[in-house]
Amino acid sequence: MNVLMIYAHPESHSLNGALNKFAVSHLENAGHHVQVSDLYAMNWKSQLDANDTLAPLAGDHFHPSMDSKQAFEQGLQSADIAAEQEKLRWADAVIFQFPLWWFSMPAIMKGWFDRVYAYGFAYGVGEHSDTHWGDRYGEGSLSGKRAMLLVTTGGWESHYSPRGINGPIDDILFPIQHGMLFYPGFEVLPPLVIYHTSKTDDKKYASYCQQLAHRLDTLWQAEPLPFRQQNAGDYVIPALTLREDIAPGEGGFGVHMKS
Amino acid sequence: MNVLMIYAHPESHSLNGALNKFAVSHLENAGHHVQVSDLYAMNWKSQLDANDTLAPLAGDHFHPSMDSKQAFEQGLQSADIAAEQEKLRWADAVIFQFPLWWFSMPAIMKGWFDRVYAYGFAYGVGEHSDTHWGDRYGEGSLSGKRAMLLVTTGGWESHYSPRGINGPIDDILFPIQHGMLFYPGFEVLPPLVIYHTSKTDDKKYASYCQQLAHRLDTLWQAEPLPFRQQNAGDYVIPALTLREDIAPGEGGFGVHMKS
Repeated sequence: MNVLMIYAHPESHSLNGALNKFAVSHLENAGHHVQVSDLYAMNWKSQLDANDTLAPLAGDHFHPSMDSKQAFEQGLQSADIAAEQEKLRWADAVIFQFPLWWFSMPAIMKGWFDRVYAYGFAYGVGEHSDTHWGDRYGEGSLSGKRAMLLVTTGGWESHYSPRGINGPIDDILFPIQHGMLFYPGFEVLPPLVIYHTSKTDDKKYASYCQQLAHRLDTLWQAEPLPFRQQNAGDYVIPALTLREDIAPGEGGFGVHMKS
Repeated sequence: MNVLMIYAHPESHSLNGALNKFAVSHLENAGHHVQVSDLYAMNWKSQLDANDTLAPLAGDHFHPSMDSKQAFEQGLQSADIAAEQEKLRWADAVIFQFPLWWFSMPAIMKGWFDRVYAYGFAYGVGEHSDTHWGDRYGEGSLSGKRAMLLVTTGGWESHYSPRGINGPIDDILFPIQHGMLFYPGFEVLPPLVIYHTSKTDDKKYASYCQQLAHRLDTLWQAEPLPFRQQNAGDYVIPALTLREDIAPGEGGFGVHMKS
């Protein structure tokens, strides 16, 4: 199978660098084809702006979504954006690897999503009607592909537990896993999160590699997170609120998972 | 009072550009001093990397937090980082203005947090003991200052409601408001969120300005979000889980607000 890694860490001699090399070699030894978008090494441009389109502006001034649409439709996107989209088309699975900085991904990876996720590619896809509100949240250009987060954090696991002060890790990652990955159609596998990285010694590193190897070996068998599909009947269209008879009276991120 | 706006939009002829100009002029007319960090206009560097420190590396290779600590302590940070920290020291209130892209801030603003929030400035501050786990979550370098988000989104309000498909807006913003603003000590005011921006006409724009003016006029009177302070007795130290007798059996972001 084809595996794409989107990887963001500024130093190759780091825990993340080592885990990235381990993952590539483990996947290749198992016969998979691997491409890595090493965003720091590529000097990836983070900021979405008018230079991302080679097409004439759709209006009088630059408009992020309208000009993304125009550039995508006309095949006039910046070459770095088009190349990443092509890698996504090629991939059967995508692993996003990053250190958790301020409870989200590093800016350079956010810039990958902001720019590669073009209008017509990752959003604004499919018909909008009274029964179908676009191909999103379970449908879309990336459906049939799997995605997984590989995340490191300096913080302690208990600080990210259900009652931990940082908030539960599942909730912290929801805007990424649901909002960025499930949205354009990925099946999202449970994340592999490595905590308290300042205390990594040889024994712990061996255990991380073992966990990662297991996750890579089961990329095609693991059960994805049970997010609810938007157009499968659970939501009222176009308000897109969860039907009143499902998890009645409850709110929050958790209701968007089938129980 | 001194108000700093951290502002990220690639086009000044936009709703965000207009609201930014409105806010500056409204605040100045009320007698306040205003500085704007217009991140796109400044060509702000988004990616945290080894060029952010002018100090010798703390170890054999670049280490994001250890080298941030060293550079901050020695006064050898990159000049753009030090300048933003100085603006923060000057400010009595900080307004972060951005369009919500993929359920978070644009990469260029994430890069502002990744880089300006140095070790020793925004984290790694204060003693760590059995009764006090660092000056964070309600204490820290930025305590006594107020912060507010001003956010626009193309999505509909119902999609961000308590049972809306995107997840509740309060939860989407929690990693920012609690994790990035309350963490180094800001008092965080409720956000001003403007929805469905593609449908903005003159009448709606006037209403947005009116709402924004009201929020600016009450910056020093509004009640901050009631996040729980880390070291005030609600959390078990060092696990930093909420005490068992508070909101017993409950989890999620909501338990970190006093009810």
